[in-house]
Amino acid sequence: MNNRAEEGMPSVGKYDLIAELAKGFAQENASTVVGVGDDASVVAPGADEVVTSSKVFMENVHFDLTYVPLQYLGYKIVTVVCSDLLAMNAVPTQLTLTVAISNRFDLKAVQDLLDGVATNCENLHVDLVGLDVTTSRRDLIVSATAIGECESAHLTRRSGAAENELLCVSGDYAAAYAGLLLLEREKKVFDANPGVQPDFAGQDYLLQRQLRPEARLDIIEALRRENIVPTAMANVCDGMAAALMQICHASDKGAILFEERIPMTELTFNTLKSFDIVHTVAALNGGDDYELMFTIKQADFEKIKNVENVSIVGYVKEKAYGCQLLTSDNHQIEIKAQGFSKIQHHA
Amino acid sequence: MNNRAEEGMPSVGKYDLIAELAKGFAQENASTVVGVGDDASVVAPGADEVVTSSKVFMENVHFDLTYVPLQYLGYKIVTVVCSDLLAMNAVPTQLTLTVAISNRFDLKAVQDLLDGVATNCENLHVDLVGLDVTTSRRDLIVSATAIGECESAHLTRRSGAAENELLCVSGDYAAAYAGLLLLEREKKVFDANPGVQPDFAGQDYLLQRQLRPEARLDIIEALRRENIVPTAMANVCDGMAAALMQICHASDKGAILFEERIPMTELTFNTLKSFDIVHTVAALNGGDDYELMFTIKQADFEKIKNVENVSIVGYVKEKAYGCQLLTSDNHQIEIKAQGFSKIQHHA
Repeated sequence: MNNRAEEGMPSVGKYDLIAELAKGFAQENASTVVGVGDDASVVAPGADEVVTSSKVFMENVHFDLTYVPLQYLGYKIVTVVCSDLLAMNAVPTQLTLTVAISNRFDLKAVQDLLDGVATNCENLHVDLVGLDVTTSRRDLIVSATAIGECESAHLTRRSGAAENELLCVSGDYAAAYAGLLLLEREKKVFDANPGVQPDFAGQDYLLQRQLRPEARLDIIEALRRENIVPTAMANVCDGMAAALMQICHASDKGAILFEERIPMTELTFNTLKSFDIVHTVAALNGGDDYELMFTIKQADFEKIKNVENVSIVGYVKEKAYGCQLLTSDNHQIEIKAQGFSKIQHHA
Repeated sequence: MNNRAEEGMPSVGKYDLIAELAKGFAQENASTVVGVGDDASVVAPGADEVVTSSKVFMENVHFDLTYVPLQYLGYKIVTVVCSDLLAMNAVPTQLTLTVAISNRFDLKAVQDLLDGVATNCENLHVDLVGLDVTTSRRDLIVSATAIGECESAHLTRRSGAAENELLCVSGDYAAAYAGLLLLEREKKVFDANPGVQPDFAGQDYLLQRQLRPEARLDIIEALRRENIVPTAMANVCDGMAAALMQICHASDKGAILFEERIPMTELTFNTLKSFDIVHTVAALNGGDDYELMFTIKQADFEKIKNVENVSIVGYVKEKAYGCQLLTSDNHQIEIKAQGFSKIQHHA
């Protein structure tokens, strides 16, 4: 299409620039046939099924460059798109990227972003097979597509949960949300007093979870080793409530979630408390965890104990039961999907 | 990621909205396993190789909604991403889409855009397998990924051209660029005198080529029927010069292009003349044609005559020869890649 705003493009030719930027990426996978530098990317999948997910990341909507370093942004983008593939029980193998920049950004900025992309691609053994650089009017906009593969027998949708199956989650919750609260607070302090340095002592874990989260390829690999195929799975990207509702809705089932079983670090708990936020509300609706929620057959109960970093947090019920949270003080509260609603603060 | 600007989202729930919008799309292809409504899309390719291409389309960079109807934009987006797959000699089969809107757009606007997407998907027998709606700060931003398949024996890169092979192109050139000139002129007239209606009498073809271009699936199908596998191919999206340079650079070859063989309609020629633009310069650098440029073996000369809408415009030379245009008055001019430079006007 017509590209009328070219001021953002560095003065080197576009094709040379892309070739140069792509140099930092190794090609590891035998399934990569044609990578960066042709009209399209080509993969020869080693499994029956090819799984893809695309996402767009926009400055001042999805990220704030006042506190997000570009390397971390690149790293996180890979985690976010790959986590959607992992949630199908697929293994990510390739990535394509489009970076739209304005004249606010120099070549170094794009390189920093791609450094972060490259680091996470290496961690996950994912090849960059498509790269485009285009112009935006002002904001940085990144579009990423993850390509992966899965044997039919492993493919896990949201829709396969059956009554009495165990509800499991990887990792711990609300740490990324607590990290966001810290970053936003320090941003306000900085805006008021630009000389003040941020004080994040002892809170590295929360910042890490917000700024540089990991995709749980380790969980998918562990499930393979234990011969566990989840019956349903969803990516916990918008809080546990949304993931649970997605599984229950697609499977036509209900579920019970035990509040006391929700994994959370003490650091997360205390930080949320310091912000007067109910920790369970943050776990249900906080977002940015990129953990996996899945259901397994009761017969897999012994095997799942061998998978590190997985907690059983509830089980699947009949549809009429709905999605219920059993609180630590033994109350039942219906869980609602709050995909876009704000976190509730203490009154 | 954190989505802090939600004012653009219609008041219905995001997941309900996406399910509603996806209803207008039929699923035709047996290779579609999981479509809209799970964590990722799944296809079971019917060929050895899976080909993908992603593009981002940004308002006021890649399109101008003052004269681009949203249905046409949707249609064109499908053409643009699918044409990259066709240029690998692959057949597009699936599409994923992310639409980012602000509160400038209502639900009807998104539906119009998707109507155009659906019409072209039907034409090309492409299934929508992923759809996301997110928020932008102001501009409409659309990201699209085309997924397709190709047998290894058909896969055509930019890099396979050999000396003395025939250089072919589909369709005719610079019509889309002439259409853009007309639209931009009428926009200026309208800005000065908002009461004046645009005067496009007899110029439908040029507007059509700019606003609602077709992907050349017909050419790929005709090549299959004639048992012709091009040795190299590129998508003519930024003018013939860029496509020729891409093929020559990737193949490590030169080429000669005959000016008098460049296909162009009389309407295009006359319109360009009325704007004082050299028609060949517009064909070389105009952009938005979405035609195919490819090279074939001399042995395929008789067979290519059976493929409608294909012209032989030159042939492949040794690298040292460079890329040369032989003008109608028998001068040789070196062709330069002008991926991002402006069209030159007559002095």
